[in-house]
Amino acid sequence: MSTAVPASAELAGEEHRLAAAYLSRVAEPGSVPLWMFVEEHGYLAAAAAVRAGEVPPEVAACTEARRTVADPAADLAAAERHAIRLLIPSDEDWPHFAFAALRATGQRRVAQWQAGARARPQRGELIPPLALWVRGSAPLATLGLRSVAVVGSRAATSYGEHVASEFSYGLAQRDVVVVSGGAYGIDAAAHRGALAAGGRSVLVSAGGLDRPYPSGHRHLYDRTAEQGLLVSERPPGSAPHRQRFLSRNRLIAAFGAATLVVEAAHRSGALNSAGYARDLGRPVLAVPGPVTSAMSAGCHRLVQREEDPAHLVTSVAEVLSYCGSAELVAGPLVGSALPGGPAPLRRPYDGLDVVARSVLDGFPGRGRSVTEAELSRLSGQPISQVIAALPVLRGAGLITVAREGYRLAGAAS
Amino acid sequence: MSTAVPASAELAGEEHRLAAAYLSRVAEPGSVPLWMFVEEHGYLAAAAAVRAGEVPPEVAACTEARRTVADPAADLAAAERHAIRLLIPSDEDWPHFAFAALRATGQRRVAQWQAGARARPQRGELIPPLALWVRGSAPLATLGLRSVAVVGSRAATSYGEHVASEFSYGLAQRDVVVVSGGAYGIDAAAHRGALAAGGRSVLVSAGGLDRPYPSGHRHLYDRTAEQGLLVSERPPGSAPHRQRFLSRNRLIAAFGAATLVVEAAHRSGALNSAGYARDLGRPVLAVPGPVTSAMSAGCHRLVQREEDPAHLVTSVAEVLSYCGSAELVAGPLVGSALPGGPAPLRRPYDGLDVVARSVLDGFPGRGRSVTEAELSRLSGQPISQVIAALPVLRGAGLITVAREGYRLAGAAS
Repeated sequence: MSTAVPASAELAGEEHRLAAAYLSRVAEPGSVPLWMFVEEHGYLAAAAAVRAGEVPPEVAACTEARRTVADPAADLAAAERHAIRLLIPSDEDWPHFAFAALRATGQRRVAQWQAGARARPQRGELIPPLALWVRGSAPLATLGLRSVAVVGSRAATSYGEHVASEFSYGLAQRDVVVVSGGAYGIDAAAHRGALAAGGRSVLVSAGGLDRPYPSGHRHLYDRTAEQGLLVSERPPGSAPHRQRFLSRNRLIAAFGAATLVVEAAHRSGALNSAGYARDLGRPVLAVPGPVTSAMSAGCHRLVQREEDPAHLVTSVAEVLSYCGSAELVAGPLVGSALPGGPAPLRRPYDGLDVVARSVLDGFPGRGRSVTEAELSRLSGQPISQVIAALPVLRGAGLITVAREGYRLAGAAS
Repeated sequence: MSTAVPASAELAGEEHRLAAAYLSRVAEPGSVPLWMFVEEHGYLAAAAAVRAGEVPPEVAACTEARRTVADPAADLAAAERHAIRLLIPSDEDWPHFAFAALRATGQRRVAQWQAGARARPQRGELIPPLALWVRGSAPLATLGLRSVAVVGSRAATSYGEHVASEFSYGLAQRDVVVVSGGAYGIDAAAHRGALAAGGRSVLVSAGGLDRPYPSGHRHLYDRTAEQGLLVSERPPGSAPHRQRFLSRNRLIAAFGAATLVVEAAHRSGALNSAGYARDLGRPVLAVPGPVTSAMSAGCHRLVQREEDPAHLVTSVAEVLSYCGSAELVAGPLVGSALPGGPAPLRRPYDGLDVVARSVLDGFPGRGRSVTEAELSRLSGQPISQVIAALPVLRGAGLITVAREGYRLAGAAS
């Protein structure tokens, strides 16, 4: 482990990106058998085996239809024409932190299946994506730390749109990233509120990023790409299908430190996102409304749940109290009361566990890079703990990967 | 204990009623020292001692100002002219059940004071009233069992008034008594909703019942007296003062099996009623509303409390689930789905504890009266338990007091 290049850089080569593009095209998002196969064999070997048709039946079942026609080079070229790039786990900006809960949940459910305690996981499960197609420049690494998923009905009322817009504006003013799905109603109001505040907004699409859905939201997609980020698991050209919306919703939940339901009828898809957030152990927040409004009925039901009830929230400050450490919340809240605009982003040091803090404390000083083995000696933590903590610290934006190892973020090399 | 006349009948004479009228005039509602003095000495001796000025200093402090001028015979005569009568604890209809929690709380706080654990209770404490001035014919005995206190802001919005009226209408349709304070806004909407359903409404006033407050509500007072009941701790002619409103609020909370807050600003008096209900161990229910409405802010705050949060309710059915046993709720709900109007009132047998049920089962059959000692033998419960259970059974309207003892309600003697 004393290599000067971190182990996670193994996927950094272009052939790995081609493999990821191929895998992202060949199967639908959230295919558990393929995810397990890639976890076991790695991207390169898994892609080659899928293309050759030399895979177990359950992997074949979810890849056979497209295995010979998928053309990752063409997909990457098409993406480039639309300013879309493919993000893979070895990339600096991969949202490790946001996906840690997805990975843990997926692994737990697979283990439960292998122990005979539940049916074989197939589709729409809480597993991380194999790759992400993105457009825009907003950072992903801190997603899940200082971000809120804002969801709700397409058939929103003017009250719901007003609240979604106002809350998102207030969150964006405090450097909180607003995550939503780009749909009509609450989604659009949330994106627009964040953009109006000059903040960052992440739009997670169910189809290809070159195909805005609904098509009337082309301008919203473009504005979001300029000021925030468009994200999809599907390569360019993909149509948004029903199952892709459900898979997409798990990413929205994973990207938010908390999920805020602004308006939802009794059977709204927003309740599906809330369920994912709950499964991931993230707080679900609900905005109350008139009891005479069917569009608030789902929110009220969430608050009334006997098990894991949603938290009723009525203000931006209350939402902030659920999306990060006390320091994260207190900093910008205090700052925003001062003239001159929002306070600078605080480091999410308080959100780290004891091991991650120890590893962070082990860094020798601004500018100097260290290997995993050196960090183990400097921090006093076992090498396995160091390796586990590094993605978290990277996800939190506290360290960066350098050619010769790792160093503190924001320090000149 | 084998006397043929129940012990609680000792106050039944007119001289006891005169003493209660005197005590109700001489001190402000909720005066703890006077209550303790009456508990110790009984109404007759306490009234005589107060009139003579031969009382401990703390009792003198709350009675001295009016002890020589109070004229209970004149008050009773004035009451009669306004169709107002004075109810005392020995009366058949005294709301023992509703006041059981007040009595227990008052006794506990006095005991804590005597043990040096808290300051001497003085005013506005959770003690039962010494007497009640009432006008109207609705029964009080079942208050606290099948009744809901509906409270909220005077400066209500049209949304709040709509909800108060609709909920109260639905509750009254299901034989639930609606209790409120007769003020503008939520109170008035609640009374009117119950009256519109042909149901019963109890209006608890802070001043004398001959002085409607606000004066614009004279017609509401008259309609409530016809169809429900007006209640006050103060004798006729009394003006509503601020402290009397606070004392009055404890009665509203005690009269409701649950307290429903429809709208309340952050510092609304309705939150005071909710606090009393909480102190009495009664459920507090809150109606959500737009987060943009200051009039719903207090309701949302109640739901957000860390300790004893209020239950968010959005329908009459949800309110009903908090005001009585499953049978109480299910009966009329099922019945109301049938054509032909509300179902008949069910017996609150399920609301009783094991001892009270045993005592009830001990009654020998319709029509025959039994003494406390006979009931002890018939039910197999100790005489002390029988004496404790009788007020509960009377409060629930299951038994009545006869000259020769007790008998099942609704049975010919």
